[in-house]
Amino acid sequence: MRTVHDVLSLRFMKLVAMGMVVLVTGCASVQPDPLPSWNEGATKQSIVAFVAKVTTPGSPDFVPVPERIATFDNDGTLWAEQPMYSQLFFVLDRIKTLAPQHPEWRTTEPFASVLRGDVKGALAQGDKAMLQLVAATSTGMTTAEFDALVTDWLAKARHPRFDQPYTSMVYQPMVELLAYLRANGFKIFIVSGGGIEFMRPWTEKAYGVPPEQVVGSSGKTRFEMRDGKPVLMALPALDFIDDGPGKPVGINLHIGRRPILAFGNSDGDLQMLQWTAAGNGARYMAFVHHTDAQREWAYDRDSSIGKLDRGLDEAKARGWTLVDMKKDWAVVFPFDRKR
Amino acid sequence: MRTVHDVLSLRFMKLVAMGMVVLVTGCASVQPDPLPSWNEGATKQSIVAFVAKVTTPGSPDFVPVPERIATFDNDGTLWAEQPMYSQLFFVLDRIKTLAPQHPEWRTTEPFASVLRGDVKGALAQGDKAMLQLVAATSTGMTTAEFDALVTDWLAKARHPRFDQPYTSMVYQPMVELLAYLRANGFKIFIVSGGGIEFMRPWTEKAYGVPPEQVVGSSGKTRFEMRDGKPVLMALPALDFIDDGPGKPVGINLHIGRRPILAFGNSDGDLQMLQWTAAGNGARYMAFVHHTDAQREWAYDRDSSIGKLDRGLDEAKARGWTLVDMKKDWAVVFPFDRKR
Repeated sequence: MRTVHDVLSLRFMKLVAMGMVVLVTGCASVQPDPLPSWNEGATKQSIVAFVAKVTTPGSPDFVPVPERIATFDNDGTLWAEQPMYSQLFFVLDRIKTLAPQHPEWRTTEPFASVLRGDVKGALAQGDKAMLQLVAATSTGMTTAEFDALVTDWLAKARHPRFDQPYTSMVYQPMVELLAYLRANGFKIFIVSGGGIEFMRPWTEKAYGVPPEQVVGSSGKTRFEMRDGKPVLMALPALDFIDDGPGKPVGINLHIGRRPILAFGNSDGDLQMLQWTAAGNGARYMAFVHHTDAQREWAYDRDSSIGKLDRGLDEAKARGWTLVDMKKDWAVVFPFDRKR
Repeated sequence: MRTVHDVLSLRFMKLVAMGMVVLVTGCASVQPDPLPSWNEGATKQSIVAFVAKVTTPGSPDFVPVPERIATFDNDGTLWAEQPMYSQLFFVLDRIKTLAPQHPEWRTTEPFASVLRGDVKGALAQGDKAMLQLVAATSTGMTTAEFDALVTDWLAKARHPRFDQPYTSMVYQPMVELLAYLRANGFKIFIVSGGGIEFMRPWTEKAYGVPPEQVVGSSGKTRFEMRDGKPVLMALPALDFIDDGPGKPVGINLHIGRRPILAFGNSDGDLQMLQWTAAGNGARYMAFVHHTDAQREWAYDRDSSIGKLDRGLDEAKARGWTLVDMKKDWAVVFPFDRKR
């Protein structure tokens, strides 16, 4: 005989069962595709498979959380680097802003070329000229003052082709990849040839990467007392170039551990990928290959910016991933989704 | 009429009530004093009060987690630095080990003095002699080889006074402080004049501070291919001295954020504390004051190692904390507890 109690129990069991269904569905619904801007295919699969094997306890490739170090180049890997590095746009804008205070620049190279609008001519004068431009616009002030200049500039400046703020020129699939790796216990470092002080004011907002996880090229600074208050003065002297063979040096100095995953896009990242590949255990090395002239740019072996030549050969020879921007990315920039 | 069901319900209520008591008691019991090796008093109170105010949401002094940066000197602040820096013991032991391969050292200074047992005489030859000793023992090898040398040495070497491994010469109250800060969302960096490559092999185990949160003095390294495998070679060239006015420079380069809490013990830490103090909002600056000749050492203004002179005056003038080792610490070293 079924009693009221039995009926209630049955109803209770049903509720429990329904609850479980809700819970299970709920769990499924809070785990949507973490990489929605990546098209399905071998590249996306290889990323997901790598993350799965290094994070699955008991897997022969399991890597403890503290050792899940991932390094990313910035220009051309996390945001656009064409038609010029954004930092160069900053430098050139700043030269124009400061020109009235420097009448001598009208007749002094490389400043004169910049002020005539001949950027190509200015850059053709070589590294020394480039360093002069950087020194004139980024030193002789405190680190806090430079931070404020960069922040101000980013709020106003627009990319010449896309008419977007430079911080919108980040690659949406890469931003998703950083978040996905972070959610899987990875600690992400930017390892860029760009200026460390130029990147730090905005990397946390743009990528979720805090200043202490940004490695870059740097000038020397000096501790001084100014009106009784300590400041760090940016000096017109180069400290370190975090590019090419400098990248493993920068990684060692700032991180002190070898990455297990590294993404770059040019020959300037080759040594970082070699250094990453040379460790024991599971590794993931990739170049972002710029193959999309329509949505971004297409360039590799012959480019003056972001040249990928030796790296392209080595990636193919060693089975590193080549992210085919055109094929692998459903969208490139965040604003693509809204168009 | 009480039914079986009622009785069961009552019993259930009692169990729930008992469970709650257990839970409440349990909660209380999992929060023992996080700083048991600190004696009660103004110093301990000031630490706990600072942590409370910067971590309490809604407090006017609240600091978001990413900005809870704490920096600690190492020698004399986290572990003993007398009668010599541990790194110097390493260097001297290494000179003796390598001597048979370098017969010329018997007649070349500063090596000859070291081999005669005249350490004082060797050190009296100045910074250049010191750098020669470091270069001879810590360069001309890969960073991985140096790491292995340090690890091997630490496993065998014993402190001359206490006959303990050097990694047991850490200050138990400071180890507790690091754990307490970490539990409260602080990110802890070591900022030491010692060699960055000398510290990284053991700071994670000794202090819970991972390699990427260690800032120190460094030599230059170079990326090379050796038998087709990439290595970083330690070169006999100084890169950076992370001491005195170098500490804010190192903090800026490696962290890129200003600390809100800093501990040092000597004038070599003064600028780090000044830099920390100069930020906005709540700050905590402290010197560990070596006042305990019996359990450790007593030294300040006149010491050749860890001299605290200007810093002592400035701490008193500005109300920074002076940790009185003798008065404030119930135990000094971890092995004190077992004696």
